[in-house]
Amino acid sequence: MKLGRFSSNERVFYGRLEGDTVFELADIFNPEIQTEKRHALNSLTILSPCQPGKAVCVGLNYMDHIKEFGHDIPSSPVLFIKPSGTVIGCGDFIEYPRSSRRVDYEAELAVVIKKECRGVSASTAADYIFGYTCANDVTARDLQQKDGQWTRGKSFDTFLPLGPYIVTDIDPGKLDIKLYLNGVIKQNSSTSNLIFKVPELVAFISEIMTLFPGDVILTGTPSGVGPMCSGDLVEVEIQGLGRLSNRVRGATEIGA
Amino acid sequence: MKLGRFSSNERVFYGRLEGDTVFELADIFNPEIQTEKRHALNSLTILSPCQPGKAVCVGLNYMDHIKEFGHDIPSSPVLFIKPSGTVIGCGDFIEYPRSSRRVDYEAELAVVIKKECRGVSASTAADYIFGYTCANDVTARDLQQKDGQWTRGKSFDTFLPLGPYIVTDIDPGKLDIKLYLNGVIKQNSSTSNLIFKVPELVAFISEIMTLFPGDVILTGTPSGVGPMCSGDLVEVEIQGLGRLSNRVRGATEIGA
Repeated sequence: MKLGRFSSNERVFYGRLEGDTVFELADIFNPEIQTEKRHALNSLTILSPCQPGKAVCVGLNYMDHIKEFGHDIPSSPVLFIKPSGTVIGCGDFIEYPRSSRRVDYEAELAVVIKKECRGVSASTAADYIFGYTCANDVTARDLQQKDGQWTRGKSFDTFLPLGPYIVTDIDPGKLDIKLYLNGVIKQNSSTSNLIFKVPELVAFISEIMTLFPGDVILTGTPSGVGPMCSGDLVEVEIQGLGRLSNRVRGATEIGA
Repeated sequence: MKLGRFSSNERVFYGRLEGDTVFELADIFNPEIQTEKRHALNSLTILSPCQPGKAVCVGLNYMDHIKEFGHDIPSSPVLFIKPSGTVIGCGDFIEYPRSSRRVDYEAELAVVIKKECRGVSASTAADYIFGYTCANDVTARDLQQKDGQWTRGKSFDTFLPLGPYIVTDIDPGKLDIKLYLNGVIKQNSSTSNLIFKVPELVAFISEIMTLFPGDVILTGTPSGVGPMCSGDLVEVEIQGLGRLSNRVRGATEIGA
């Protein structure tokens, strides 16, 4: 199933997408319960498909990306958190912060959590996963490198495009993942190259912290990351999940 | 005013504390609107006074603590985020994770945000601050050092004791801050030693990310941090804000 969050005349609702028709839902986590309402997709604004309380992100999880930055291979996933205010939907603008001179795209597979969970094993992780969507882990690379800690460079409002939809019935193990900048392919890999796989990540993270419905796990980015400028169109495409498109806007002059 | 969150017979509510009496409130952010109900404090369980969507934390913000770890003085605040699931109240247990062999206390002044804000200046920051409370930035020091990134070591459930109350009418500029481990004083400083002061922190962080009502900013810890063991009683005391007491329990054996 392909599920999303939409708005029409300032009303916000969830829906199941079938062809070009959106069947309205009372609750995205119970998509089998449909309302009477249906909409033409092209009459709606697409919003981020979920509103995570937190995005737990994994750094350095594709071998080629680790080589690209000259890092060592981590013995366990390296984590950081993007706060809820970073989330935007397909079509929304990524705002270039005044305090950065280098803002990068990072195409990633995002895992959406279905049920509150803590201490889940890898073998039962699938029971707690609602579905998958595309993510762009936008990063102020200069601030990330200056701070050493990654949080500031990753946490600006609008720095987590998510969407366009959540797909619930797909195997995340071997999906092509691509990033296009102004139509030119910049990242091109497969989720089969993930060092720590999705079930291991759910187990590892839920051993530390409770995950709540709608929380997302970002699984890391392959090689080919690079900068964006105001006006650029950046698109993350994952096989079976669609294409997440966003434009960059705002200040590129030097700030604080 | 001294404001808190309480429970009685599984009912949860906010209240204003006056002596030993709790005057129940409909909304902690509008404490001037009182309900008819009042309670004896000793009949209630004290909960964390707010439920932050995120805790934005500042590392390395006391000179003596920077020297203790041999770090350089940062030119701007170094940030990390503790997720909402870390929060516990006064009297709750800090759970020792199986995967760590070294869990430290860190006494900190916490700032509670009143109104949604973004891009606030230091000179108007006070308008967006609801009050102050005590925090313990519990840290799995071994995992923090292993990862390089601080998020995992800081993000275990129960790793953010907050409370006991929010005090709204206090100047945070020069408050004694102390930590007691089993009654023995281990940290002893003053918020006057903060490198980046509270208004600057609100300005710096809100330039990056939207802050929401109930979000907290942890302002950093002074020198004297050290390990805790299962059974230990750890207490953060800040002048005018009271004493936040928690016990440690759980596994100390070697885990993953």
